[in-house]
Amino acid sequence: MKITHECIHCLARQAVEIAEEATSNVSLQEEIIKRSLRELGEMDFNETAPEVAFRMHQHAKNITCINDPYKRLKEQYNEIAKKICNRIIEERWLDRTEEPFDMACRLAIAGNIIDFSAGLNLKPSDIVKSVEDSIKHNIFGTGTTALQEAVKNANKIMYIADNSGEIIFDKFLLERLPIEKVTYVVKGGPIVNDATMDDAISTGIVDLVKVIDNGHSAQGTILRDCSSIFKDEFSKTDLVISKGQANFETLSDIKDKNIFYLLRAKCSPVASAIGCKQMDYVLTNC
Amino acid sequence: MKITHECIHCLARQAVEIAEEATSNVSLQEEIIKRSLRELGEMDFNETAPEVAFRMHQHAKNITCINDPYKRLKEQYNEIAKKICNRIIEERWLDRTEEPFDMACRLAIAGNIIDFSAGLNLKPSDIVKSVEDSIKHNIFGTGTTALQEAVKNANKIMYIADNSGEIIFDKFLLERLPIEKVTYVVKGGPIVNDATMDDAISTGIVDLVKVIDNGHSAQGTILRDCSSIFKDEFSKTDLVISKGQANFETLSDIKDKNIFYLLRAKCSPVASAIGCKQMDYVLTNC
Repeated sequence: MKITHECIHCLARQAVEIAEEATSNVSLQEEIIKRSLRELGEMDFNETAPEVAFRMHQHAKNITCINDPYKRLKEQYNEIAKKICNRIIEERWLDRTEEPFDMACRLAIAGNIIDFSAGLNLKPSDIVKSVEDSIKHNIFGTGTTALQEAVKNANKIMYIADNSGEIIFDKFLLERLPIEKVTYVVKGGPIVNDATMDDAISTGIVDLVKVIDNGHSAQGTILRDCSSIFKDEFSKTDLVISKGQANFETLSDIKDKNIFYLLRAKCSPVASAIGCKQMDYVLTNC
Repeated sequence: MKITHECIHCLARQAVEIAEEATSNVSLQEEIIKRSLRELGEMDFNETAPEVAFRMHQHAKNITCINDPYKRLKEQYNEIAKKICNRIIEERWLDRTEEPFDMACRLAIAGNIIDFSAGLNLKPSDIVKSVEDSIKHNIFGTGTTALQEAVKNANKIMYIADNSGEIIFDKFLLERLPIEKVTYVVKGGPIVNDATMDDAISTGIVDLVKVIDNGHSAQGTILRDCSSIFKDEFSKTDLVISKGQANFETLSDIKDKNIFYLLRAKCSPVASAIGCKQMDYVLTNC
């Protein structure tokens, strides 16, 4: 999905947020903002937004010499997500429903609200609300039954993770997949609050499923920049479960692979590309 | 008032709107957007937002060779404003109130809603609502009595206009000022929907009061770039009535002149600098 005019002010907003999250030094903040805006001014409108954002983030990292400016926020949201998931386990939501696969999909989508690229104003209550809404909200797209059918027919499944915090919600769905066929993919390095191997270890996902990283630290999955190990695994996969907006933005032009996208459509350009309404719960293999 | 971090994404949004308003040619739009973003990336954080925006607009004009991309929209909103003002005249709002000066100030502030820099989504109903709200809304600041007192004590009054459309609402207030002491100021050239001499002529303001232009075509009043005729007039003035946000942003650091600002506080950085809430009706000489 190519960058749209509507992405511009969102990326400019992210330039400011990256700067303010990376350092409290005002002159360094201004340097990051100006360097990011110039980077934005050099973009190619055939690129995806995550490709441009990646280069903006690299400037923040280089200028501050801080590799992971969002570390504090990621840990905070991992803790919040764990608490909500523990409540779901204690209240036995998945045991008490007649359609546990459907419920697991809904929770995986609900967790996708934990996305700092869409703005840093996320409150813990927003996550709780996303989880509670996910149960009653209509799912836009092909729906959970189509995914369950595709899972039955697949020999090799790749589950591409999105954000830290959110990955804890992925566990509900992973537990309902033929786990021996699944490879779970995290980022090769930190970018905003995207999940890395550290998150997969600290949340116990590595004990549940084979986990690899994609060898790159952009948001989404920019195939040409990913490691050969990842690309090899991707080529052998006959079903991809892709979480979140950035993975949709970077993979949606690939048409020779069965890819199911699970996400909250948080911005208008993505909602428009999918054909759904903003903030819809999406499960589709468009 | 210096540019703030919050101004960045607003200016980036304006870069896109300028491009889309200036031309329907997609590659020219992309050139304008990219050139504007690079310009934004070269800014000095000691500048005001209108100074940066001016340079962005110059790129759009140079790339498209169109001097007045907002001409169509300006004419449209002039017509809408005229209709609303005619209704106010027909219904004799100012004759029927006990405080016509206060009412005239409120209408002048209400007209300030016609501001395309704050977004192009303005509907005619927004102007009607701004006018209707102005009558019952609290005025933030020193209030209309303080302005009336300052007018009584002034020998030379400068009334710095803001937008086309809005200037029709200014007539209510101009008619209640000692008109022989007043110089009304429009822009030296087109920028967004700011009022120029053309607007002062077509609305009959030139028949009511002495009108000059400021010799420059940025939003607001960037004193160092204005003509010597304007600067001379400004220096002799002992009371300035300044309309709109951009005039506040560019004049608010001048402390040796009695300046009353009349505006709707449409964005958070301006509201914060004034100390009021966003969308407040402001009349203050802070």
